[in-house]
Amino acid sequence: MTDHGADSLRPFFEANSVAIIGASRKMGKAGYNIIDNLLRFGYKGEIYPINPSAQTILGLAAYPNIAQTPKLAELVIIVLPPPLVLPAIEECAARRVKSVIIESAGFAELDRSGALVEKKIAETARRAGMRLMGPNSVGTINPSKNLVTSFPHLRLCLPDGRPIRPGSVAFIAQTGLFSFTFLPLMDAELEISKVACLGNKCDVDECDLLEYLADDPATKVIVMYLESIKDGRRFFRLSRRIVQDKPIIIFKSATTPLGAKVSASHTGSLAGEDRIYDTAFRQLGIIRAGSFDQLFDIAKALTYCPLPKGNRVAVLSNTGAGCVTAADACARSGLKIAELCGETLAKARTVYPDWWQVKNPVDVLTAVETSGFARGFTTLTRLVLRDDGVDAAVLVVGAVDFLAEEDVSIFFKDMAKEFPGKPLLVVNLLGDRRIYHRLSQRYKSFGITTYETVEGAIGALAALCRYQQYRQNA
Amino acid sequence: MTDHGADSLRPFFEANSVAIIGASRKMGKAGYNIIDNLLRFGYKGEIYPINPSAQTILGLAAYPNIAQTPKLAELVIIVLPPPLVLPAIEECAARRVKSVIIESAGFAELDRSGALVEKKIAETARRAGMRLMGPNSVGTINPSKNLVTSFPHLRLCLPDGRPIRPGSVAFIAQTGLFSFTFLPLMDAELEISKVACLGNKCDVDECDLLEYLADDPATKVIVMYLESIKDGRRFFRLSRRIVQDKPIIIFKSATTPLGAKVSASHTGSLAGEDRIYDTAFRQLGIIRAGSFDQLFDIAKALTYCPLPKGNRVAVLSNTGAGCVTAADACARSGLKIAELCGETLAKARTVYPDWWQVKNPVDVLTAVETSGFARGFTTLTRLVLRDDGVDAAVLVVGAVDFLAEEDVSIFFKDMAKEFPGKPLLVVNLLGDRRIYHRLSQRYKSFGITTYETVEGAIGALAALCRYQQYRQNA
Repeated sequence: MTDHGADSLRPFFEANSVAIIGASRKMGKAGYNIIDNLLRFGYKGEIYPINPSAQTILGLAAYPNIAQTPKLAELVIIVLPPPLVLPAIEECAARRVKSVIIESAGFAELDRSGALVEKKIAETARRAGMRLMGPNSVGTINPSKNLVTSFPHLRLCLPDGRPIRPGSVAFIAQTGLFSFTFLPLMDAELEISKVACLGNKCDVDECDLLEYLADDPATKVIVMYLESIKDGRRFFRLSRRIVQDKPIIIFKSATTPLGAKVSASHTGSLAGEDRIYDTAFRQLGIIRAGSFDQLFDIAKALTYCPLPKGNRVAVLSNTGAGCVTAADACARSGLKIAELCGETLAKARTVYPDWWQVKNPVDVLTAVETSGFARGFTTLTRLVLRDDGVDAAVLVVGAVDFLAEEDVSIFFKDMAKEFPGKPLLVVNLLGDRRIYHRLSQRYKSFGITTYETVEGAIGALAALCRYQQYRQNA
Repeated sequence: MTDHGADSLRPFFEANSVAIIGASRKMGKAGYNIIDNLLRFGYKGEIYPINPSAQTILGLAAYPNIAQTPKLAELVIIVLPPPLVLPAIEECAARRVKSVIIESAGFAELDRSGALVEKKIAETARRAGMRLMGPNSVGTINPSKNLVTSFPHLRLCLPDGRPIRPGSVAFIAQTGLFSFTFLPLMDAELEISKVACLGNKCDVDECDLLEYLADDPATKVIVMYLESIKDGRRFFRLSRRIVQDKPIIIFKSATTPLGAKVSASHTGSLAGEDRIYDTAFRQLGIIRAGSFDQLFDIAKALTYCPLPKGNRVAVLSNTGAGCVTAADACARSGLKIAELCGETLAKARTVYPDWWQVKNPVDVLTAVETSGFARGFTTLTRLVLRDDGVDAAVLVVGAVDFLAEEDVSIFFKDMAKEFPGKPLLVVNLLGDRRIYHRLSQRYKSFGITTYETVEGAIGALAALCRYQQYRQNA
């Protein structure tokens, strides 16, 4: 739908007024949850609940239909049973509504007759110059406007009930997980600029959103979960331009014939040949993730780390197994274990006992025992980051309470600022998930990203290297 | 060292008296930590701190040397600087000590002269009929005796300061991580029978421990992290026998030339050709893990799930992306998406709206919206588990607070007991790590194991299937 331009997508994230067709007084219903979410997250715009039989909903004046709202809503959300959706779209068209999200399910993802109705909906919208997200969308999020159109009840989603912090990572997904389940993780370990759940993509698709996000000043990193790509040609043309500026990371599922079959009944989409995508992604500098895990791992590295100048890695670990598994992971993902220069080695010896031989990966346990955690670990970290032969460093420590207690993260407080050109990734081996959570929050406040596993950190670093290499050669 | 027999290893886990050569009054020193760990974990045997200049350590009478303890210690731990270790071993030999753990480092893993001393140590021990674990070991754990010989200070390791619960999973590792960093995770998501950190394996090796654990009634599952295998022939002969009874899961690292090189300076061992291991493991029914993550994932499944009769999986997910990614993961790991029988499909329809089409993977969101979480999700779970065409079920839900709040795990309370022949694995997608921790504890109390990722659960289930298949064909 290139003729609309990216501006036509602004209301999905920046609307100053939102109408909810299918608004409900019953807690737990989508038409209630959306309004409650908007109120609780502190949305400042107008909210118009549309319900033919209610006077007020959640303290807001309700309207019998979209034609009777005080002003034309900039964004309309439809959460009606499937048979009522097309009539509602016709009503919106008559009222000249410009942006609609259909959060109802039961269309192309269900059966052929659903697909037919969906087609009529799309045609109606197109004729009226209306942009349509969905059907089967879970909604959009823009933290900087406190605009949340998700239908799951998010009241307890962020543990302390506060609004989502605005950040720089945009999520485009053919799933509602990013509008809901993943939110606490996205908020804890990243920071969100925009979220959009595409649903069946009967109008707005990943390309439209890419165009919009390319020009969105808040967005620095684009994360996508896709089961299919609607217009490959346009997608790759857009991506080629955008990745020069903003990295794009994609978890493309439905990669097996079985997965593709299941996807058809999830979002009614055809998955296409996986190898073709793989080649195209690589040629275009798009970073591919193989799971949601990897998607987050790589997004964290791209958000908090500078791009490394090369692939020479220093590993510092307070466990020998950390050194060995990191070396294995580096070898498998095309990273090199850096050779430390003579000066680094000589200075490193000062925090070890006489009999120790320093080498990379650096086993820091003996240094910590000899010189204490603060001096041992931080001296070695600074030394390797200062070494011209090192492009990035990975620290491996344990997420256990004796460390949390001693607050070792504080020793790395200024490390990211001190070495702005070199990625520093911390692995907090589990350990205890609660302690990991606490540690990761603290490191994040120092601009350092953390990982549960050595493989996760090294994999993310390797993705950074490949992206940087692509940009240099492009 | 086959001539000793497995009985010679009992003192490492069941000693009624422990002497610590190198005992220290200084908190943080290994010789202090070991004693404090023993006391705090409630060890009931005798503890003899050996220190030439101390009267008491941590309230215990100290002795100037091993010859002067009231009784012969059944287990001696040595935590001295490297040059003092050989003389201490000679002293132990003179006193006819039968079991020693050397937790000092600085031997074969360091350099050639260290390797020479290590060889002398091993010879001295052999001549004296002494069994030796290490050097460079972090110690052993036996929760049922409250025997903990780890030198890291574990006082804050288990968050509530209680002893480790005795269980059925044994960990043999060429790393100290299982004696320390991983303990909270091992305790939270599994239950420990024995832990041994092998160190440099100058005498006791993985084969000796396999023999011991084969006859250990508490141990049902054997988990190993190895960088090398000392005696492949013996290892494979033993494994072939043991896996008929008890599954063996191995994370063998140092699989790349780079990793192997690093391993040589970690535990002084030679890694060997990876492909040979891979083939041998497969032929012998040993389950191979590719990371610590996978090691735990598979161990959890083997501990809490029955072995499935076949590879036909039912997936129930409250997110479409869960269905698609599970189908992809099944296809990739040789599992089948089960075909549900007519009766199951007909009964399943009762919890959905009329227009819904039930199929496997089962998207339960609409059923939950229509019939509530309890009725929707549990009806469908029971139906698929009752279906003769289904061998195992994987549930995908989100680890978010609105679920924890409604305590949905309770609906699955009796499910594992109700279907004792079919594995049931729950994926609690992150979400929030703290909530995941809480949920996983609750599910575990119902005998159900949980995973953070779809790929983790499906991978573990596939390992169960392969193991069962091996046992059936053997």
